[in-house]
Parts: sequence; C-alpha cells; structure tokens
Amino acid sequence: MRLNCDLGESFGSWTMGMDEAVMPHIDQANIACGFHAGDPLIMQRTLSLAKEHGVMVGAHPAYPDLVGFGRRSMNCSADEIKAFMLYQLSAMDGMAKSVGVELEYVKPHGALYNDMMAKVEVRKAIMEAVAAFHKPIKLMLQATPQADEHKAEAAELGLELWFEAFADRCYDDDGKLLARSKAGAVHNKEKMLAQVEQLCDAGTITTVSGHTLNLQVDTLCVHGDNLAGVQAIEAIRALVDQRAS
Amino acid sequence: MRLNCDLGESFGSWTMGMDEAVMPHIDQANIACGFHAGDPLIMQRTLSLAKEHGVMVGAHPAYPDLVGFGRRSMNCSADEIKAFMLYQLSAMDGMAKSVGVELEYVKPHGALYNDMMAKVEVRKAIMEAVAAFHKPIKLMLQATPQADEHKAEAAELGLELWFEAFADRCYDDDGKLLARSKAGAVHNKEKMLAQVEQLCDAGTITTVSGHTLNLQVDTLCVHGDNLAGVQAIEAIRALVDQRAS
Amino acid sequence: MRLNCDLGESFGSWTMGMDEAVMPHIDQANIACGFHAGDPLIMQRTLSLAKEHGVMVGAHPAYPDLVGFGRRSMNCSADEIKAFMLYQLSAMDGMAKSVGVELEYVKPHGALYNDMMAKVEVRKAIMEAVAAFHKPIKLMLQATPQADEHKAEAAELGLELWFEAFADRCYDDDGKLLARSKAGAVHNKEKMLAQVEQLCDAGTITTVSGHTLNLQVDTLCVHGDNLAGVQAIEAIRALVDQRAS
Amino acid sequence: MRLNCDLGESFGSWTMGMDEAVMPHIDQANIACGFHAGDPLIMQRTLSLAKEHGVMVGAHPAYPDLVGFGRRSMNCSADEIKAFMLYQLSAMDGMAKSVGVELEYVKPHGALYNDMMAKVEVRKAIMEAVAAFHKPIKLMLQATPQADEHKAEAAELGLELWFEAFADRCYDDDGKLLARSKAGAVHNKEKMLAQVEQLCDAGTITTVSGHTLNLQVDTLCVHGDNLAGVQAIEAIRALVDQRAS
Repeated sequence: MRLNCDLGESFGSWTMGMDEAVMPHIDQANIACGFHAGDPLIMQRTLSLAKEHGVMVGAHPAYPDLVGFGRRSMNCSADEIKAFMLYQLSAMDGMAKSVGVELEYVKPHGALYNDMMAKVEVRKAIMEAVAAFHKPIKLMLQATPQADEHKAEAAELGLELWFEAFADRCYDDDGKLLARSKAGAVHNKEKMLAQVEQLCDAGTITTVSGHTLNLQVDTLCVHGDNLAGVQAIEAIRALVDQRAS
Repeated sequence: MRLNCDLGESFGSWTMGMDEAVMPHIDQANIACGFHAGDPLIMQRTLSLAKEHGVMVGAHPAYPDLVGFGRRSMNCSADEIKAFMLYQLSAMDGMAKSVGVELEYVKPHGALYNDMMAKVEVRKAIMEAVAAFHKPIKLMLQATPQADEHKAEAAELGLELWFEAFADRCYDDDGKLLARSKAGAVHNKEKMLAQVEQLCDAGTITTVSGHTLNLQVDTLCVHGDNLAGVQAIEAIRALVDQRAS
Repeated sequence: MRLNCDLGESFGSWTMGMDEAVMPHIDQANIACGFHAGDPLIMQRTLSLAKEHGVMVGAHPAYPDLVGFGRRSMNCSADEIKAFMLYQLSAMDGMAKSVGVELEYVKPHGALYNDMMAKVEVRKAIMEAVAAFHKPIKLMLQATPQADEHKAEAAELGLELWFEAFADRCYDDDGKLLARSKAGAVHNKEKMLAQVEQLCDAGTITTVSGHTLNLQVDTLCVHGDNLAGVQAIEAIRALVDQRAS
Repeated sequence: MRLNCDLGESFGSWTMGMDEAVMPHIDQANIACGFHAGDPLIMQRTLSLAKEHGVMVGAHPAYPDLVGFGRRSMNCSADEIKAFMLYQLSAMDGMAKSVGVELEYVKPHGALYNDMMAKVEVRKAIMEAVAAFHKPIKLMLQATPQADEHKAEAAELGLELWFEAFADRCYDDDGKLLARSKAGAVHNKEKMLAQVEQLCDAGTITTVSGHTLNLQVDTLCVHGDNLAGVQAIEAIRALVDQRAS
C-alpha cells in the first residue's frame, strides 16, 4: 500500500502546500503540470525534491483553468482532452528526465478526475491519451466497485491502472465518496486510521451505513495542505509501514 | 542549404499562416509550443503535417506572452528562462514522439531570439537549457560574424549549433539585419533570389553598403504568412535545389 | 427591428471577423471583453469604429476560456459568474466612456449564452450581475416562447430585456434553434430573407415542421465572419429598412 | 500623511497578504486589477473590505504577467500601455462603483512602477492613459528630487499627482531607493519609525551617506505581507496619528 499526494501546487509568487514537509513521508508525488497550478520553475523544484527523497513521480494534469484551480468541469471534446493530456504529460516527462527521474504514472486533477470517474467519454479520452503517450505509464483512478470494468476498458488499450482510496473520506454504499457537504463526510484522525488499517488488513471499507465493501487499492491519497495534514500523513505512514512488516 | 519556417502559429479559434501550403516546400518546421502561439491541438496537427511531408521538427519556444505573440522582451531571470525553455522543449518533444517523429532542434522565437543574439546572459541561459535537456538537440541561431564565438560558447556545454540566414532581409556591414523601418530592409523577389544564390554559391552576403560578408549558413529562414510568401518559398526551393544538383 | 453582430473578436496578432466591413450595416455591436477574445487594444479600436458609425455598444462577456473561445461550458458558481460578469462589464463600460461612447447593453457569449438560456441558476446569476452593475443596461437574450417568464424574472430585479432572433437559423417547434448538425439547420440566403421578412411583418417564425410560432423580437443576430456573411448582412439591412419605411 | 498598501494580491485558490489585518490601519488600498494578481471575486472582496473600513480605493495595474507577478519589465509600446492601463482602471472603477465606493487614484505595480520612474516614455504613456480615463483620478508615483518635473509633465495633461515615500527603505543621495541587495537597504523597526517621524516633522529623509534630502510626500507605502509587517503598520499608524494631532 503506497501513499500518494498532490504536490507542486504553488504558482509564481503564490505558495500552496507544505511540499518539503510532506515529501519524506510519501511514495508517489502527483505533480501539477502548469494548467491549474505549477509553473516551470516550481515543476523543476518539485521534481528535484521528489528525486532527493526517492519518491515516484506522477503527472497531475488538469483542465486549462488557472483561476479555478482546475476544479470546474469544462465541456471539452475528446480531441481537446487527448491533446491537453499529451501536452501536460510530455512537459512533465521531459522536465523529469532533465532532472534525472522518470515519469511513471498520471493521475488527473480535480474536475478532470471527477469527470473521468463519472463520464465514460472523458475516461475514454484520458485512457486513449495515456495509451498514445510515447512510453508506457500507469493511470491512477479511484478504487470503486466498477474497478473491473475500468480494467477491461484499459486492457483494450494495453493500459495498466492503479487504484487509489481516500484515507480520510467516508464512503457511501455505492463505493462513492460521501459529499463533503454531508455530516461525517471527512473522518477524524481516529476513524481515518481505522479505515487505513482495515484497507491494509482486509482490503475492505466500512460504508456510511455500516456495510462492508471490497476495494482493490494500490495506493492511498493523502493531503498535506497544512500542519494537521502533515501530521496525519506521518501517522498513516507509520501505520502502513507497521502492517507491511 | 535547408529551408526553415515558423509554423503552428494558430491558436484556438484563430488561424495564422498557410501551414499546409508551406510544408511541402521546406526542410525544417519551427513549431510554436503554446507560450506565444500554438495550443495542444494545433501542435498535434502541425507535427502530423510535418511527419506527412518528411519535414524535420524543431521547437519554437518563446517568452510567456500570448497577447504580445512573444514579440515583447521580458526581463526574465536566467533560472526562469531555463525553466520555461525546458518546459516548452519537453512539451514539443513528447508530443512529437507520440505522433511518431523526433524533435531535432530548437529555435527561439521573436523577442527571445533577439535577446539571445543581443545579450550574452540570455544566450547562456538558453544554451544551458538546451544542454540540460535529456537528449541532444541542435540550437539554431542567426549566422553573424560572431558565429565562432557562439560556437565556442556552445562547445563548452557540448552543444551543437545551426546558423540561419534570412532570404529576404538586407544586412548591414556588421552582419545584422537592417531595421525594418529603414528603406530597403526587405528585399523584393529578385534581390531575395540573388541573395540566396550568392549564399549557396559563395557563402557570402552583399551588405546594404555593397560590402561582401562571409556567413556560415546551414539554413535559410523563409516566411509563409500569405500567398506571396508561399510563392517566394517555392522560388527559393527551386533555386536551392538547382544549386545543390 | 435592429441588427446586432459579434465584433472585436480578434486577439493580439490574430485577426477574426470583418469588423470594418460589417460596422456600417448594423445597429448594435456585441464587443468581446478579453475573456474569450478581444484585448485592450482591440477593444479600443472596435469601440472607436462603433462610435464612428453611430453603432450602439454592447458588452459580449464570456467564460474565462481563451483557447476554447468561450464555447465550452464551465461549471462556475453563481458568485464566480456574477464577479466575472461585473469585471467584463466594467472594463467595457470604462473603455467605452474613455472613447466617448456609452455601454448600453450586454449579451453573453457562446457557452455562457447557451447556459443562460438552458439553466435557471446561470440566468439568475447573470441577471443579478447586470442588476448590480452601477448603471442600468439592458440584457439581450434569445427570443423564445419563454420570453414572458424571462421578463418576469428580470422585472423582479428591475432589469429590462431585449430579445434577439437568428436570421439564418431554422427553429424547431419549441422555439429552439435546430442543432447545426441537422439538415436544414442553417438557411440559404433566400430562406434567411424570407424568415426576416416574416419576423418584420408578422412577428412570427415558421418552424422546421411548418408550424407558425410567435416571437417577440427586438433585434436580429447577424454574422460577419467572411465575405458571404457581410453580403448577407447588407441584404438583411436593405430588407429591414424597406419594411420599416 | 496617509498610509497606502498593496492589497487584493491573492489569486484564485492562492492567498497572499493579510488584507483583513491591514485594512483597519491604512488610508489607501492599492488593489490588484487581475493582470498580475487579483481575480474578479478577490477584487470584489477587497473593495468591500475597503468600503467597510472607509479606506480610499486605488487601482494597482500591472504588466500582463501573472506567473511573474508583474515584476518583470516588458517592452510594451506606448499604445499597449495606454490600452491595458485603461482596461484595468475601468475594470476596477466599475467594480468599485458596483460595490458602492469610488476609485480615486491609480498606482502602477512592480515593474510598471519602476519603468514609470525610470523611463520617460513609459511615464508619458501612463499619464496619457490616466488623463484619457473618463473621470479624474490621481496618479501616485514615487517622491523624488524630480517631483517638480513630474508635476510639470502631469500638469500639461491636466493630471494631479500624489507622491509616496517608503517607510522602511533606505534612500541613496539621488533620492532613489538603495537596492535590496545592498547592506542597510531595508530599515529595522527603529530606523523605520525615525524615518517616518522625520518625514512627518521636517519633510526630509536622511540618506545612506548621512545627507538630508527634501521630499514632498503625500503618502507612505507600507507592507502587510506577514505578521511583522502588520505590526510595523500599526506602529507607523500610531506615530503618524500622534504627529498629526
């Protein structure tokens, strides 16, 4: 069970996230590619930081929406999605190589991620873009009860998937995240650690209504926006390392 | 003697240049990378068009200035220049590979090109960026009497240069282009062809005051913005092919 | 019956539309505000051209999507829509005043226009933005059988509406435009002029299935992207002037 | 003696500055207009905050350079400067009116400010833009020994100027700010308060070499980027109020 985190989300003179505090504790860095955050200098610094800590590098591409931080769905055509995915993947891949690391996977950001999970035509465009990329990289998407369908879609294109779960979010009975607006949507630290433990040991989630759901999970998404986030990551890291040993 | 041309300079719904008419007649396409022109879809189409015609692919990176079309000098630091050069090179390289062609060289655009020729610190930053790129590509700059100095600067970084001359521009005695505001700065078709012929046969230019100047020239820059430009390219193509045979 | 046209849609070094040929024939210029097209210099020139021809000036605001030309729906919040509407209205109003003309109305562009017609929450946000603007201006939207509902919504905010019809587009029985992908969606010149004549004389439209639909129409939307468009505008102008006399 | 501060410098999801802590202590808010910082939502919030505290509102326009935060000089033409100045002034003016306050002045930001002080053609373009604005507003520039020349330039255009000094910066004998790279360029709190006191009481500055320089000063520029900055503002506020009473 790996830990992945969105990093490199500063832009120009604006700082976001605690990248230096987070990097030592994670396995996979999802690095912004310049369309919702991240400029060329920040991409370089984040890649160097990942290299220093031996963290695997992933691209974190988004809709072209800087002021909206890639959080607003945009009604792009499949051709537009494929083209901007390849642009962002290419930019990250080449900058990674120039820093001395290899791009190994891609995880779409924000609204592009949500649309990928909700709309088959967006997911297809994203998968085709990754399959058209000049070297094989993995695509990370959300672990859900539909994982086998997603694997089948990917297999047709010769694509491998990684599935992620959210450490601190409550799931509904369909395996979706409970909307943030609902009570109990975000776990406290105790529940978060219990959810991680159950995922590590049993490969299951307990949903909001108490049902048990099987989830194939390769990696856990964690958040390092602030000090509490960093402390939560440290606790998850310790727990995951303990269960693995 | 090769012919190079700036292409892929459309953006979104706006069209610029006659790329389909130009591509069959040139050897090297300098393709915009998204910072002054060119969006991911247009980059893909231009790369595919270059592949179809067997035209060598170059990146045409610029200052980040879409509304100014990269024609306004920006006072960027060396670190900023290196980072945005690597970003644009990487984006073009990866998209080229995904289309099935290889990026072979880079020619800076507009104000970045002018600053490269005029300011040693900008040239140094550009050379360092190209040298830091993960694969060897050539850097194209203007053929001037300073070519040997530029070669020496490049050699220190293990970098190879290509030098270009302008078919339709009048040179002053220092080997600089006569400012467009001056009379006779842009040749008519007859003078243009005579200049190309002299470059092919003797490797020299006749300056505005009638002096003869040696210029090491690998490639000629031509312009395909309109019908007259395309016709000029056809005439230069025929002439260059004739002198080479 | 007035004629309105989208103008000022160039950007930086890219040209779009035949503004100088169109302006003499229209009554209302919908001028891009910089978010999908139009930069400050182009806004100034378009405003000056409108002033020269005594054409009424309207703002043509859009989603912030330059590469998509404002044609891609973006899932913006009501607060975001209100804020970017006020920004674009303000920019156009102040620049118009500085050129010596007054902003009199606003017509949303592209996907923002479509969302305004299709989604009550987008329409409400747009109406609230126009109502919050520091001076009264009209809001232009599409003439449909729902015009009275739209008027009621506007009246609650003290807002006046203008309704536009499309000269060259075929309508379905619900008063919506036939999708461009369908046969007969765009009229030839003869049918276009017949539709304009019927609107002028009877205030009705004949739909794709032959039904007659009442439409309250204040202004006709015309297009001047190319020579054929300009010629169509001249023909509509002549016809409208003739019916009015 | 007024206090002015750059505010509204957040952008989208990125926060900069401690606007809520600063606003109660200042007289004049220089608010970013969207070209280097500030988006429409942030402009609205900053204007509302200024209104709440009775703080005078100024526009803080910049070169179009978001990733560079307007700190990189761009070689723009006079027409480009005039147009983007009018656009930013207009956007701020209209949004201010819609919030219920009036735009009273303009202070260029960053590299545009520096170029205004250093290059007569940039200063002229800025002055002409402000003079062309549809309502009279003041232009704020740096108090220097050249103030009378600047006033004469402004008077020709019917323009009024306000001059600002920097509370925490050491001046050289020419009345320029000592470069930040030099020792002693930024005063500690004690020296800063002494400089303010001397400006209030005697209208003079003691330069780095100990000379006394007369400076006509209408307003003091203060900085609220962090807690120490806010505390410095509070101390300057108390001192200025005491000298005025």
